[in-house]
Amino acid sequence: MTKTNEIYQQIVEMGKQIRTLQSLSLFMEWDQETFMPKGAIGFRSLQKQTLEALAHQHLTATELQELLGKLIDFDTGEFIKDDGLEDLQKAAIREFRLDVIKAKKLPESFVKNLAKMGSETVEVWAQTKPKNDFATFTPHLENFLKLVQEKSKLLGYEEHPYDPLLDEYEPGMTVKKLDKIFASLKDFLIPFAKKVRSKNLNTDFMYGEFEESKVLELDKRILSAMGFDDSTFRLDTSNHPFCLSFHPTDVRMTTVTKTTDLIAANVSATIHEGGHGLYEAGLDQDYFGTPICQAVSIAFHESQSKIWECCIGQSKSFWQHFYPQIQEMFPKNFKDQSLDTFYKTMNRVEPSLIRIYSDEVHYCLHVILRYEIEKGLIEGSIKVKDIPDIWNEKMEAYIGIKPKNHAEGCMQDIHWAWGLFGYFPTYALGTMYAAQLFDTLTGKFPDFDERLSQGHLHFIKEWLGENVHRYGRQYSSEELLVRATGKPFSSSFFEKYLEAKYL
Amino acid sequence: MTKTNEIYQQIVEMGKQIRTLQSLSLFMEWDQETFMPKGAIGFRSLQKQTLEALAHQHLTATELQELLGKLIDFDTGEFIKDDGLEDLQKAAIREFRLDVIKAKKLPESFVKNLAKMGSETVEVWAQTKPKNDFATFTPHLENFLKLVQEKSKLLGYEEHPYDPLLDEYEPGMTVKKLDKIFASLKDFLIPFAKKVRSKNLNTDFMYGEFEESKVLELDKRILSAMGFDDSTFRLDTSNHPFCLSFHPTDVRMTTVTKTTDLIAANVSATIHEGGHGLYEAGLDQDYFGTPICQAVSIAFHESQSKIWECCIGQSKSFWQHFYPQIQEMFPKNFKDQSLDTFYKTMNRVEPSLIRIYSDEVHYCLHVILRYEIEKGLIEGSIKVKDIPDIWNEKMEAYIGIKPKNHAEGCMQDIHWAWGLFGYFPTYALGTMYAAQLFDTLTGKFPDFDERLSQGHLHFIKEWLGENVHRYGRQYSSEELLVRATGKPFSSSFFEKYLEAKYL
Repeated sequence: MTKTNEIYQQIVEMGKQIRTLQSLSLFMEWDQETFMPKGAIGFRSLQKQTLEALAHQHLTATELQELLGKLIDFDTGEFIKDDGLEDLQKAAIREFRLDVIKAKKLPESFVKNLAKMGSETVEVWAQTKPKNDFATFTPHLENFLKLVQEKSKLLGYEEHPYDPLLDEYEPGMTVKKLDKIFASLKDFLIPFAKKVRSKNLNTDFMYGEFEESKVLELDKRILSAMGFDDSTFRLDTSNHPFCLSFHPTDVRMTTVTKTTDLIAANVSATIHEGGHGLYEAGLDQDYFGTPICQAVSIAFHESQSKIWECCIGQSKSFWQHFYPQIQEMFPKNFKDQSLDTFYKTMNRVEPSLIRIYSDEVHYCLHVILRYEIEKGLIEGSIKVKDIPDIWNEKMEAYIGIKPKNHAEGCMQDIHWAWGLFGYFPTYALGTMYAAQLFDTLTGKFPDFDERLSQGHLHFIKEWLGENVHRYGRQYSSEELLVRATGKPFSSSFFEKYLEAKYL
Repeated sequence: MTKTNEIYQQIVEMGKQIRTLQSLSLFMEWDQETFMPKGAIGFRSLQKQTLEALAHQHLTATELQELLGKLIDFDTGEFIKDDGLEDLQKAAIREFRLDVIKAKKLPESFVKNLAKMGSETVEVWAQTKPKNDFATFTPHLENFLKLVQEKSKLLGYEEHPYDPLLDEYEPGMTVKKLDKIFASLKDFLIPFAKKVRSKNLNTDFMYGEFEESKVLELDKRILSAMGFDDSTFRLDTSNHPFCLSFHPTDVRMTTVTKTTDLIAANVSATIHEGGHGLYEAGLDQDYFGTPICQAVSIAFHESQSKIWECCIGQSKSFWQHFYPQIQEMFPKNFKDQSLDTFYKTMNRVEPSLIRIYSDEVHYCLHVILRYEIEKGLIEGSIKVKDIPDIWNEKMEAYIGIKPKNHAEGCMQDIHWAWGLFGYFPTYALGTMYAAQLFDTLTGKFPDFDERLSQGHLHFIKEWLGENVHRYGRQYSSEELLVRATGKPFSSSFFEKYLEAKYL
């Protein structure tokens, strides 16, 4: 072992501690949404604060910076010593440096302030949303916006104040690039959605009462088919489906079993979270504690949930295998409906006010609308008080309907109340990455549909594991997509995918 | 706020952090026994190690010691400054000093070593116990014993090397005191057990198949009657019943629902854990982070589980209320049996090889046997290899039966494999404290039995809360017992209790 390797090992040990503290904070969230007694909520905040503050302290500790500084120049990012380090280890050091630099830009008090304001604003949002009371929410959002603008300044930018926020969730992405991508996507989607809009569909049979234990059994059957290892994940129920991972060997997902809308609210959600979960389970645990055992970006994470949820889980071949099973499990709803009817109904294209209930054709338009507004808010060209009008205008222009109230309009999402500006674009980027990956995947396996129709899905997990998951943050999101698909990013794959499916 | 109050507040903030880290480590244990995917076991060790090491670092940090040192003299324990501090706050500082002193006696590497050897020895124990292979287990236990003897030296003692180990679980208790207590108890119990031994009881109806969901419903009904606040606890199932508390608002208990022995393996176990749980829930959360929000000792903790499990949960008046309910829930077993038969059968006195299945008459003899052996091991008068012979001899002399193998003999308990020397005596002490508390409690409420027979139990929780729980570590265990019962500790209460119940 060289001296360099020794330093590397010391850094990894520190990284493990940081990552363990961060994952414990996620643990507290998982428990809060699943099993925590309600009365423990006050103490829960203290637990999360303690863990996050400790993680931040460790990440910004002089000791870590000094160790990293022995291997890599903090100012230039050039390696000083790398004898005996493998490529993955060098990548780990490269990314670790970036994490430390970013963490040091935000003082601990500022991070605490952000978290505190997040909790408070979410509470106001939760109270005002049901009353459609945007006026009361306005000053709170204005205050929060100021703090987010300060965050942008602290993180620093060259071109646009929105860039560093975007960079948090999709490193390397900028307003300049995104404006172009979204402009062309919008031009495609608006007329396309009108063209493929569903007509005269009877959707009644999709709704009903579904026995919860059976629903959960179905979910587990699907997750198992997707390739989950029984010994390294859990599926529980919660109010909103989510996936949190503490380690590649401990992935916790939730789904909603109490629903009248089995497919959209449960099955699709489970498959979606399953996609996230497989990414986390597919990270290289030997590198736990380093950025190699972390997903490359939120947008790429979303590509993994979307490829499973939409490209696979809403395909006809997938349901050729699973539809007979749900017909048997829930005969009241599905016995008398053909696979074709089911497939068409599940993939119906209809303008909807609510993003999370949107079909895959309209979905990105919901995202673009939010992106345009939040970019304006951050740069100051849009005022908080004007959000409702702008929202309603854009909704009509892009999707063709207008909300009757703020709850189903500009107050529907929790993101802004959480201070999550810069996050929304990842939903659309992930959707497009998914289509590009799907194009390559189906190209590699000429018998793709046949495999799916027989319930074979493991090969997809393996292909994604081999071409995406295992790399963690070794490559940038942009590079990773090129490596996996052989082509640079293009929205044309998504457009082609929609045309093939809906025309 | 005086300067002293400011320092006190700073200490409390540090205490909160330490306590939060410690409680997170308990959280990891709770999850491990309830919901953790099996494959996550490796990472779980890293999580626990990280948390425990951090808690130890914070507890032994110079900064904390300096702050405490401004209020209290570290050498003498005399207060330097206490203007504006309330009694409870002074007690908190007094106990905090003791915790820091104790923590500093054991270096971090030693603590880690203890934990590591614990995990390893438990694994050997788990493998060798089913094979009755004490010979293979011997060298491992010998090594561990050496480490425990070193721990005793590091902690320091005046009279007996067992004293500092005992002090960990029952502060202030010594071999000198305990030898006296146990000698007189043994003299009472051995002839008493022979005298009250049950004869010709048909116990068949106690065993059967019990529907798990109904069992859990019964458990929750009983816990609710005991006075649990629905919003601050959970009851789950696990292989062994236990209670872990993270905060007075977050108490997690488990029970066993898969059993053929409803009363002993489930109901009594649930009530036992419920007693522990009520103690934790009854601590003063305003003092969280200080020793005031901690149970005074393990022995006192055991008194809370024992008073509920035995004195209350195995009394006739308790079952006057609950027996009709289980007759209705499980008619196959209980419909045709009278309350008298049930009560007599549940309280049958029979020598048993296994401590945890022992009746309350023989129970303390099991504990005394272990105490005598582990005291001998620590002082060096007994060798590990001689344990089986000594065990079997004592078992015959005290309880009148002899194990056929080590699994039901000297290898039955996990404690020694965990390095828990000094812990066993708390089971007997707790049993005796419980009887003394019960004597006072029944004296205070002349209509005690009538209340129980009507299912009213809240007043017990309130009395224990008022007289025991809320004080935390404000008083020593000895003082607390005097305050609660008006009398110094005496084993005569336990003897009187047994005589009244069994003669």
